[in-house]
Amino acid sequence: MRVAFQGEPGAYSEEAGTAYFEDVEMVPYPSFEEVFEAVASNACRSGFIPIENSLAGSIHQNYDLLLRHELHIVGEHFLRVRHCLIGFPEASLSEIKFVISHPQALSQCAEYLSELGVNADPVYDTAGSVKMLKERREPHTAAIASKRAAHIYRMQVLEEGIEDNPQNYTRFLEISTMPVSPEKNAKTSIVFSLENQPGALFKALSVFALRDLDLTKIESRPLVGKPWEYLFYIDFLGTTEEAHTQRALDHLREYAVMLRVLGSYPRHLLDASKGLV
Amino acid sequence: MRVAFQGEPGAYSEEAGTAYFEDVEMVPYPSFEEVFEAVASNACRSGFIPIENSLAGSIHQNYDLLLRHELHIVGEHFLRVRHCLIGFPEASLSEIKFVISHPQALSQCAEYLSELGVNADPVYDTAGSVKMLKERREPHTAAIASKRAAHIYRMQVLEEGIEDNPQNYTRFLEISTMPVSPEKNAKTSIVFSLENQPGALFKALSVFALRDLDLTKIESRPLVGKPWEYLFYIDFLGTTEEAHTQRALDHLREYAVMLRVLGSYPRHLLDASKGLV
Repeated sequence: MRVAFQGEPGAYSEEAGTAYFEDVEMVPYPSFEEVFEAVASNACRSGFIPIENSLAGSIHQNYDLLLRHELHIVGEHFLRVRHCLIGFPEASLSEIKFVISHPQALSQCAEYLSELGVNADPVYDTAGSVKMLKERREPHTAAIASKRAAHIYRMQVLEEGIEDNPQNYTRFLEISTMPVSPEKNAKTSIVFSLENQPGALFKALSVFALRDLDLTKIESRPLVGKPWEYLFYIDFLGTTEEAHTQRALDHLREYAVMLRVLGSYPRHLLDASKGLV
Repeated sequence: MRVAFQGEPGAYSEEAGTAYFEDVEMVPYPSFEEVFEAVASNACRSGFIPIENSLAGSIHQNYDLLLRHELHIVGEHFLRVRHCLIGFPEASLSEIKFVISHPQALSQCAEYLSELGVNADPVYDTAGSVKMLKERREPHTAAIASKRAAHIYRMQVLEEGIEDNPQNYTRFLEISTMPVSPEKNAKTSIVFSLENQPGALFKALSVFALRDLDLTKIESRPLVGKPWEYLFYIDFLGTTEEAHTQRALDHLREYAVMLRVLGSYPRHLLDASKGLV
């Protein structure tokens, strides 16, 4: 089974995909657009994309791609992002003077790097920084990436969990041409827009509240070029196969200008003691 | 008047600040943390920070900093992000082979760069890429940054508006130690959390709907480590000085575990024909 992801081998998307799928070939693509196309054209059976991060927020570009393609969300996975400082097998932490990685990874480890007293140098990709380090053969330089990237390029993890804020989670979605029918612990993701009328959102949310449906995400996004119109992203517990969920969506269609069900899928349940459920 | 922003001279934050303020000295700081500290310590009278982008979503890190500091939002500004391809004064577009910029700017111009047939090389900052270009003196390299950055470093704009998606807006906030009291066209930003009870969010939104208060933003954010607890970000039209707004917030306090008013401030009204209002 081939699964498309965006990035280089060793990327966090690949790490998350390997934890989520069993026996899978993770296939790298340069852009999210190409990941969607690989799935739509059946070059890959699924795609695996990040949709939100606990520090950086929702990735609207991937919501846009979900709306532009006729694909279904068929699963989700939360990955705790643990950045590693990675050097040559013979390197030692005290000799590191330069650190390369994607700017977001560098900024998420800014305090650590400042205490270490090293210079940070941005490159395109986290996993790509390990590849680059290996090619450049600079013994005083280290990279920041996943443990998996260190393993793939046969480099050494000098220190693990160097991110300043440990509450760093990324939520990934599996996307596919075929929907699934989860039986329990299901979550459904929808996108809809409302006309500008007083209390429009309140009415829209009543369709869930009146049926005791639990929301796990709500987000508004202004529609640029359409003053006062918004897109709303909502995730709720339940599947579109249940009668009361169907009725809630039918009820929502009475208010919504546009409504698209992105998919019902098994919810990723994490151990409550470890954080996110 | 000194205003703190994050980035290099010529950054989009500086461009937006120059459009928003009159007669101001924009002072660059390396991190958002330092921007907040510069304002809290009165080293600068205001700070000017991005809070959300129409493609990349909300910047949760800046919401976290707003919660950690006792500062007030006193204004907002929407900037239409127009990326420019910038080269040496004697450069011509046909001779450009390499383009450097922040990875987000490069990815927002990916189609344009692909049609141009050039290689993209990431660096730390958009404005910083122009500075770097000037220092390196590479005639076949161009940078992607704001028009202002080209002006500051006396370089040439080879092409303007090269972003693939023109619906690229960033919303900035002015933050200050002193709140303001806007009289009309006001917006108020709040953050609150709710306990996990069925319909909790619906009840919370009723306090606005029952008083005909218009929401312009709503976003949920899971509280990592507290399963089933969420932070909610809401912006609504009106100020905390109005009686019905005060009553709405008092009503919300009956349901909220935590409620913080980040500020009431004049709303940025754009021409409806140009997009966002």
